[in-house]
Amino acid sequence: MKPDDNKPVKIIPLGGLEQIGMNITAIEYEDSIIVIDCGLSFPEDEMLGIDLVIPDVTYLKENADKVKGLVVTHGHEDHIGAIPYVENEINMPIYATKLTMALIEHKLEEHNNLNNVRRKVVSHGQIINLGCFRIEFIRTNHSIADAAALAIYTPAGIIVHTGDFKVDFTPVFGETIDLPRFGELGKKGVLALMADSTNVERPGYTQSEKTVGKTFDNLFNDNRDHRIIIATFASNVDRVQQIINSAYKYGRKVVIEGRSMVNIINTASELGYINIPENTLIEIDRIKDYPDEQLVLITTGSQGENMAALSRIAASIHNKVTIKPGDVVIFSSNPIPGNEKAVFKVINELEMKGAHVIFQDTHVSGHACQEELKLMYALTKPKYAIPVHGEYRHLKRHAELAVEMGVPKENVKILTTGDVLEIDDDTFKVTGRVPAQGILVDGLGVGDVGNIVLRDRQHLSQNGLLIVVVTLERESNQLLAGPDIVSRGFVYVRESETLMDDCREVIQEALDMCLAKGVSDWNKIKTSIKDSVSEFLWKRTKRSPMILPIITEVK
Amino acid sequence: MKPDDNKPVKIIPLGGLEQIGMNITAIEYEDSIIVIDCGLSFPEDEMLGIDLVIPDVTYLKENADKVKGLVVTHGHEDHIGAIPYVENEINMPIYATKLTMALIEHKLEEHNNLNNVRRKVVSHGQIINLGCFRIEFIRTNHSIADAAALAIYTPAGIIVHTGDFKVDFTPVFGETIDLPRFGELGKKGVLALMADSTNVERPGYTQSEKTVGKTFDNLFNDNRDHRIIIATFASNVDRVQQIINSAYKYGRKVVIEGRSMVNIINTASELGYINIPENTLIEIDRIKDYPDEQLVLITTGSQGENMAALSRIAASIHNKVTIKPGDVVIFSSNPIPGNEKAVFKVINELEMKGAHVIFQDTHVSGHACQEELKLMYALTKPKYAIPVHGEYRHLKRHAELAVEMGVPKENVKILTTGDVLEIDDDTFKVTGRVPAQGILVDGLGVGDVGNIVLRDRQHLSQNGLLIVVVTLERESNQLLAGPDIVSRGFVYVRESETLMDDCREVIQEALDMCLAKGVSDWNKIKTSIKDSVSEFLWKRTKRSPMILPIITEVK
Repeated sequence: MKPDDNKPVKIIPLGGLEQIGMNITAIEYEDSIIVIDCGLSFPEDEMLGIDLVIPDVTYLKENADKVKGLVVTHGHEDHIGAIPYVENEINMPIYATKLTMALIEHKLEEHNNLNNVRRKVVSHGQIINLGCFRIEFIRTNHSIADAAALAIYTPAGIIVHTGDFKVDFTPVFGETIDLPRFGELGKKGVLALMADSTNVERPGYTQSEKTVGKTFDNLFNDNRDHRIIIATFASNVDRVQQIINSAYKYGRKVVIEGRSMVNIINTASELGYINIPENTLIEIDRIKDYPDEQLVLITTGSQGENMAALSRIAASIHNKVTIKPGDVVIFSSNPIPGNEKAVFKVINELEMKGAHVIFQDTHVSGHACQEELKLMYALTKPKYAIPVHGEYRHLKRHAELAVEMGVPKENVKILTTGDVLEIDDDTFKVTGRVPAQGILVDGLGVGDVGNIVLRDRQHLSQNGLLIVVVTLERESNQLLAGPDIVSRGFVYVRESETLMDDCREVIQEALDMCLAKGVSDWNKIKTSIKDSVSEFLWKRTKRSPMILPIITEVK
Repeated sequence: MKPDDNKPVKIIPLGGLEQIGMNITAIEYEDSIIVIDCGLSFPEDEMLGIDLVIPDVTYLKENADKVKGLVVTHGHEDHIGAIPYVENEINMPIYATKLTMALIEHKLEEHNNLNNVRRKVVSHGQIINLGCFRIEFIRTNHSIADAAALAIYTPAGIIVHTGDFKVDFTPVFGETIDLPRFGELGKKGVLALMADSTNVERPGYTQSEKTVGKTFDNLFNDNRDHRIIIATFASNVDRVQQIINSAYKYGRKVVIEGRSMVNIINTASELGYINIPENTLIEIDRIKDYPDEQLVLITTGSQGENMAALSRIAASIHNKVTIKPGDVVIFSSNPIPGNEKAVFKVINELEMKGAHVIFQDTHVSGHACQEELKLMYALTKPKYAIPVHGEYRHLKRHAELAVEMGVPKENVKILTTGDVLEIDDDTFKVTGRVPAQGILVDGLGVGDVGNIVLRDRQHLSQNGLLIVVVTLERESNQLLAGPDIVSRGFVYVRESETLMDDCREVIQEALDMCLAKGVSDWNKIKTSIKDSVSEFLWKRTKRSPMILPIITEVK
C-alpha cells in the first residue's frame, strides 16, 4: 500500500495520556477511522460521587460515517470498560481476540445492548481490513490472557501499537510474545511505535508470571496447617491458575469469591483459558465441610476496595467467611498508587482478628520494564515514537528511552489527550485539537454532573450547609414566618444552640435592613442574608458552610 | 526506689496506637501521673472538612490534681501538635530538650497561651522529678535534632520509652544515640520497653543521614548548569544543613521557601542547631539577581500538600518562582502512605513545565529498622515489651520481634488506645479502659463535629442535596406556596428541567395524599415527601441525594 498522494495519517488520542485509564485512540486517513480500545477510568479523588469516567467521543460522532470499527488490545477495564456507553453513541463493529471478546460481550449483556453490536473474534496473526487500513493482531504477554499488539498498515506506513505488554519467556498460559513478528515489521519499516509506558521508570526486566507460582508453592508448603486466603486482581486468570495448581498439589479445595472474579474465571474456564482439575473448586457454602488446612479462598479486594470480598471479610461483614486466628492472608498484588491507605486498613483489620498477612513477593507486573521496551525498539526500529499509556512522568521517561534507542529527538512526541497528530514520512506534527475531556458517569446520568455540581459537592463535603427559610408577604415583603434555620454537616446543633440563636438574630437584622432600605428584589435580599450569615459564621467558627437562603412568598 | 506495697504502675496510651500520629501516653502511680508527648494527627480521608485530630484528655482532666507534668521526646507535630489545645484543658508544666521546647513555644505563641504554661528545658542525661517518678532524658537520633528517649523510674521499676529513634553512627549534628546508657539501664533491670514500631517491617539498618549528603554532592556536581529546587520535610534541619553544605561547596546561594520551614530553620539557627555560612542565605526576592546555576531553593511540599510552596510552584500559582525548562527538582523525601497520588500530580506538573524531577535515593528514614530495634532489646533486656508508634500491622511485627529477642510471649502486649495496663514484676494486664477517641478540630470548633455531622458531609459529598420547600396554612394544612425545589451538587439543573418538573408532581401527589388521609403531623408529611422523592429520584437517576423537606407555616 502506497500513499495516494502523500497525505499524512492522523493519530488522535481521545483519552489515556495524562492519567492511567480510559485508553482510546482514533487513527484516521481520508474517509476511514479506526478506534483502538475504549476504556474507562476511575474517578479522581476530587470527583466526588462520580462512579466512573468515560471518553468524550464527540469527534467520532461527528465523523460517524467514517468510523469503520473498534479494535481492542485486551480485556482490562481501562481498555474495554466504556464500550457499552460508547456503542450507544456510535454503533461500530468490534474486533478482538477470544477472551477479550467474551469479556466485552459480558459487559454489553449487562447493559442490554449485546444484540445491537456486530462483533468478530480475531486470532493472533490474523489481519483484518477496515476501510483503508489493514490491522494485524500480534501475540503479546500481559497480566490477562489473549493480549494483542496491533500493526496498523496505513497508506502512510505501518503504525505499531503495543497495547499493554510485557515479555514473558515462560508464560503460564499460551506462548511468548511474538518477538519475531515485531522483528519482521522492523525489517519492513515501521513508521511509528506507540508503546506502553507504565513501567518505564523501572530498570531491568519484569519477572515472568511463573515466578509467582513458585512462591505460592513455598507459601503453601510453609503454611500446611492453616487456611489460606489469597487476594488478587479479578482478571489475572494466570495468577488464579497458579493458585489452583498449588492448591491441587497440596490437597486443598478452592473457593473463588467476589462477583467480578467469579465471572471472569467462569468465562476463562468455558473458553479453555484456565484448567481446573475436577473436584477442586467448591462453592463457598461448603467451606464448613472441610478443615481449614484443606481450603484456599481466592478473592477480590486486593486494592482495599470498600465493597470487595476481602474488605468485607476483614471488616467482619462478609456473611460466609469469618477470619480466625491462624488464617494466612496473601496479597498477590501491589497497591495501585492512591490505594495504599485502603490496603493497609484491610491489613490492620485482618491482623487484629489474628490473621497472618503476607504482603510481599507474591506479585509481578504485567507491564514491560526498561529493557523490554528497549527490546521492542530494537526489533521494530520505528521512525517515530509516540509513548502511550501513562502519566506525564512516564511518557517523558519513555521519550528519553526512545531517544536513547536511536529515535531522533524531533521524532519523539508526547501527545496530550485530544491532540491531532499528522504523521507520514515527512510530517510529524500536531495540527489540531478535538474535544477529549472525560465524561463523568454518576448513577444513570452520563455527563449531567459537571464542574458546578462537583464544586458544590466539594463545598458541601468540607463545610456542610446552612439553609435559611423566610416566608414573606407578597408586595409588602413583611416577614410572615421564619427565619428558620436548617443545617446539615455543619455543626452538631444540639451543642450549638446559642450559635443558631445568634445566627437567627443576624438574619433578622439583615432583613430589617432590607425592609428599611426598601429593598424588594429577592435576589438582593438573599445576597444580604447570605453575606451577613457567612461573615457571622466565619467570625464565630472559622468555617464557611454553603449558605442557602430560600424565600417563599405568600399573599 | 522500692515499691511501697507492691502496687503496679499504670500505662495508659491516650492516642497513637491504631494510627500513626497523636502520640500521648499517661503513666500513673497512686497520686502521680506524667504524660509522655502530646501530638496531633491529620484527618483520615473519611473525616471530611476536618483540620486535625487531637487526643481526648478526659481522663487527665478528671485526675488533674495528679498530673505532674508533660515530658516530650521530640518536636514533631505528632508528638507536640496538640499541646496548645490540651494545655487549655489541663495546665501542666512541660519538660523537653532545647530545640523541642523552642518548637513547642512557637506553637503556644501562635495560640496566645505561651505565658500560661510553665516550661523547663532539660538536657540529655538530666533527670527530673515529677511526683513519685524520676525521668531521665537519653540522647537518641531521629530526623529532627534533640530527640530523646525517656527512662522513667517508677516505684514498680524502670520503663524505657524510646520516642521515635534510629541509630545514626555518623549523625550530621550532635552525637550518636547514647547506646551505653541503654546498656547500663539493661544491667540495672528494665521493667518494660516501649519502642518505636514505624520501620519494624524493614530488615537491616536505617542508613545514616550523612549518606544523603553525599548524594546531594553528586547531584550538585551532575547539575552544575541548572537551577536546583529541593523539597523536603520542614523539620529536617540536618537535611537542610546538608543541602546548604553542598550549595556552599558548589558556590550557590540558598533560598528557603515555605512558612513552616522558614520558622524551623530560623529557630534552629538561633539555637545553633544549623550552621549557615555567611552570605549563603538570600531572600526569595533576590533570586532574579543570580543566574540559575548559582541558586538552590529548599522548599516545603515534598508530600504534595496542596498549599505548600512546591505544589504552588508546580501549579504556576507561586508568585515568586516559575519553573523553567532545565530546572532540576529533587524530592528529598518518601511519600507517606496516602500521599502518593498528590506527589505524582506535582511531579507530572513539574515535568510538563520542563523540569527534570529526581525522586529516588535522596532520603533516609528517621526510624529504626529491625536490626536497630534488636539492638535496643539487646541493650535494655526488658522484662516486658509494649510496642508503640505504629498501625496495628507494625505493632504486631514488633511484638514478634520482641519474642524473637527473648521476651516471653506472655510478656508482650499490643495495646489499644484507651487501655489501662497495670504492670509490675508480677502483673502485666489490661484492667480497664478510659475515653480515648480522637477529638475532631474544624476551624475554631473543637469536638463540635461528630459522627452525625461527618455522615451528613459524606452523604452530601457523594450525592448532593435536594431541598423541598412547601408553605402550608396553619390548621388547614392547605398548600399556600410551593412546592419549590432547590438542589445543589445533585445534577446540573438546566439540563434536568423535566426531572425537576416531574419531581414537583411527585411531591404534590404526596401532599395530596396526606391531605386526603387527614395527616396533619408535620413529621409525617415530611417523611412522606422524603420517601416519595427519594424513590422517584433513585428510579430515574440511580442516585440518592440528601432530601430535606422544609415546611413553613403561615396562618
